[in-house]
Amino acid sequence: MDFGSANVTERNQLPPALAISTVIFALRSDGGRQALWMPLVRRIREPHLGKWALPGGPLSGRESLQDAAARNLNETTGLAPRYLEQLYAFGGLDRAATQRLVSIVYWALVQPGEADLARESENVKWFPADALPDLAFDHNTIVEYALWRLRNKMEYGPIAFSFLGESFTLAQVRGVYEAVLGRELDPANFRRHLRATPDIVPTDTFQQGGRHRPPRLYRYTGAASPDPGFPRRTP
Amino acid sequence: MDFGSANVTERNQLPPALAISTVIFALRSDGGRQALWMPLVRRIREPHLGKWALPGGPLSGRESLQDAAARNLNETTGLAPRYLEQLYAFGGLDRAATQRLVSIVYWALVQPGEADLARESENVKWFPADALPDLAFDHNTIVEYALWRLRNKMEYGPIAFSFLGESFTLAQVRGVYEAVLGRELDPANFRRHLRATPDIVPTDTFQQGGRHRPPRLYRYTGAASPDPGFPRRTP
Repeated sequence: MDFGSANVTERNQLPPALAISTVIFALRSDGGRQALWMPLVRRIREPHLGKWALPGGPLSGRESLQDAAARNLNETTGLAPRYLEQLYAFGGLDRAATQRLVSIVYWALVQPGEADLARESENVKWFPADALPDLAFDHNTIVEYALWRLRNKMEYGPIAFSFLGESFTLAQVRGVYEAVLGRELDPANFRRHLRATPDIVPTDTFQQGGRHRPPRLYRYTGAASPDPGFPRRTP
Repeated sequence: MDFGSANVTERNQLPPALAISTVIFALRSDGGRQALWMPLVRRIREPHLGKWALPGGPLSGRESLQDAAARNLNETTGLAPRYLEQLYAFGGLDRAATQRLVSIVYWALVQPGEADLARESENVKWFPADALPDLAFDHNTIVEYALWRLRNKMEYGPIAFSFLGESFTLAQVRGVYEAVLGRELDPANFRRHLRATPDIVPTDTFQQGGRHRPPRLYRYTGAASPDPGFPRRTP
């Protein structure tokens, strides 16, 4: 038996390690066009030293999964988003070199006001979600999965409003859909569709700014997600 | 410091243990009426010795999460259902007495022909999902969560067909909805709704049996779940 296969045997006998990671999406304006951006953290130790990665870390014995995700997120970006949910547990056999690693991944959707407050530093930086570098571990795959789930959810429910503030213009809602779906939508059709949605109600307020004809602000009065029936914090 | 708090300290310093469990749902006829049933396993050791529990066990270093779920399921019930997906990771702080325990839970939907083949024994028994005994650990909560997700998914997508065979009568589809939603639906309205669904197509075959006017069989030609775009086996 050579040294390599002995290592594999040892590796198989270690219990799996457990980590929590978070995918954070926010809308940012990128030369006039809105796009999905996400904060990443530069790894300051091996493995994958120097590569960008999702914020996260090992699960301690004292925190719920959701609390660990919220803490990681806050420590790296200073954010405390309202939309923070479990996305998926990734547990493929070869995700890490030294020990079997299972990552329970949460995802957060951040509103523009919050995103503006997010910290950047040498080791925390925001990237456009459709132009990420080569990330540590399988984090590119995890982001791909998160984008796919987000697009899927947009077809079925009101998740788009998690990216917007209390009130918004109809063009801003279209901006969310365009940024997430990655294609332009017909403005007139989209407005008609939104106006026919009962949970989107006009306010008496108009967007501030130097525009010739300021657009009306709307509010979303429905549930924040299509899953309102079960307590957010499952045990 | 008393003995109790010393134990809590020790417990907090152990790394979290990781288990895979599976919630299995099948339709069974229960005096003419269809209902959701699920197989449970009697615990043959402490903790919770003698109580019924979801099939499952610790994650070994050599199996993907999905493979571990499929193996547990097959070892307990003899089943290999086509619909087997990750449901949720449960990681509350006090789920087990001796060590922090995180359970990644899968769920399986089983077709009637498969369910008839399922083994029962002294330590494996099927129960109606709405009349379960007091289960081990937090497994009652996990089943509640799975039922809630199932009801939610039925509103948005074609998950109901995972409970049925290749072809089925419209009354059988209504049976699935009634069993999952726990209430009766108007037969005429339901038929009209199904007939207007493009992915449900009539066959030239009729259900066998001694009925006066045998009902026509239909097929579902759409995707098995609203999530067809991403590979089923995520890493």
